[in-house]
Amino acid sequence: MTKITIVGLGLIGGSMARDLKSQMNVQVTGVDNNLQHLSKAKELQLVHEVASLDEAINNSEIIILAIPVHAIQELLPTILSKINEDQVVIDVGSTKEEICQNVINHSNRGRFVAAHPLSGTEFSGPEAAIRGLFINKKNIICDKELSENDALEQAISLFESLGMETYYLNSTDHDKHLAYVSHLSHISSFTLSLTVLDIEKDESQIFNLASTGFESTARLAKSSPDTWTPIFEKNGIHLVQALDKYMNHLKNFKQAIISKNTTALHGLMKEANEIRRVLKK
Amino acid sequence: MTKITIVGLGLIGGSMARDLKSQMNVQVTGVDNNLQHLSKAKELQLVHEVASLDEAINNSEIIILAIPVHAIQELLPTILSKINEDQVVIDVGSTKEEICQNVINHSNRGRFVAAHPLSGTEFSGPEAAIRGLFINKKNIICDKELSENDALEQAISLFESLGMETYYLNSTDHDKHLAYVSHLSHISSFTLSLTVLDIEKDESQIFNLASTGFESTARLAKSSPDTWTPIFEKNGIHLVQALDKYMNHLKNFKQAIISKNTTALHGLMKEANEIRRVLKK
Repeated sequence: MTKITIVGLGLIGGSMARDLKSQMNVQVTGVDNNLQHLSKAKELQLVHEVASLDEAINNSEIIILAIPVHAIQELLPTILSKINEDQVVIDVGSTKEEICQNVINHSNRGRFVAAHPLSGTEFSGPEAAIRGLFINKKNIICDKELSENDALEQAISLFESLGMETYYLNSTDHDKHLAYVSHLSHISSFTLSLTVLDIEKDESQIFNLASTGFESTARLAKSSPDTWTPIFEKNGIHLVQALDKYMNHLKNFKQAIISKNTTALHGLMKEANEIRRVLKK
Repeated sequence: MTKITIVGLGLIGGSMARDLKSQMNVQVTGVDNNLQHLSKAKELQLVHEVASLDEAINNSEIIILAIPVHAIQELLPTILSKINEDQVVIDVGSTKEEICQNVINHSNRGRFVAAHPLSGTEFSGPEAAIRGLFINKKNIICDKELSENDALEQAISLFESLGMETYYLNSTDHDKHLAYVSHLSHISSFTLSLTVLDIEKDESQIFNLASTGFESTARLAKSSPDTWTPIFEKNGIHLVQALDKYMNHLKNFKQAIISKNTTALHGLMKEANEIRRVLKK
């Protein structure tokens, strides 16, 4: 019997709980200081039992932190100080650099595995937790050389049991990469939503948004501010670099439109089409 | 037997051809000055027959223009001058203001119906043409009071036969509205793609793009520059206004991140979440 505690029963933690709970010989304990989430998680039977953080730590082999990234950063050193040399702590936050930096000298650093399962949706909370969320998705483990082998192996096998393949990056490269491919995408969606809501004020209602391209580009604008505010803050430096590049490309588009430069406009899109090469479908 | 000519056998024209051709008592003639498209359309049996533009006009009751918007604008007055008082010309371009303005004083203006079926995908060409593309989608007809009743009725019933419901806007409001909900979405996608391709140069390959939000926000970056260059140009004024608003919101995001203004950052996303109200799913 493997005893696993999941701290934070939202989209990611709750979905992990659902899948892990269904496995034979796994006991899942849920911890959440949001009492509404905790009660919802109980109602939805996401976990075998709920407990206080200290109780749960004492009774678990693996402790998973699935809370907002600023809360992970705050809580992680305390938890590492409370565990023994056989326990493993895994975080699943969307930024990694500051979280890792903050415990780099902790005596129990080796018991910690910094992970990021790439599997978000625009929904949040225990109600958003679904079975199979992680199947065929990629997991990233950062700074793996700082984790002890047995801790790393337990983490890899846990993610494997959810259907994920694990890749490795250092935490700085992770954050830089995610700034571009994930965090910038979210900001562009939030911004698109704000811009369209602007004209809604003039036009009393948005005429039709389906099949105009808006639905897919603005999907992420439904995402939780509670999740994304700390992500953008923790990844501020990389994200501002990405935003600057994005804004430069946007200016080029605007300039080509204003100056009626057909060749430049066509060229920008032709270049952007190159993304077909890296997007699978 | 209703004889219909479709000029332009790409995604939209080809998909209309497929559906119309399947209907009883409809004869579909295809016209395309891109010989590769024409030959592909024949091979895929999108139409009953192909013909030259003049032949097709002479033998059709309804002529549909499904070519890029600058080509519609150029060709429409010529076609209106060639038709008789029983024929109907329908365009399905993504911008409407300049196209309508350009024929406002034409003696056959009443035989023209300015339409925009909201049904694009990121693909293009005859190979992208599919059955059922228009089912349960919305069609917009612009400046309907300038079309004669019988022409309007024929157009509405044609779009209805494809599974579409028709709504009405004036052509200026159409273009302004579409600048925000469609054209801006496309530019944000193209720009996102260009930005991510930038870092790919440094990193040799994009590590992973699936499940990061990038796939849905950058989907439209695969769209055809041949289709979209004239759309952005024809809708330049409204689009630059939309871009300016978009860039302002983007600057607010950047500023909130730089100044670590948690409340402002959270507030921007909370406001953007309002889009849930207008997005159906």
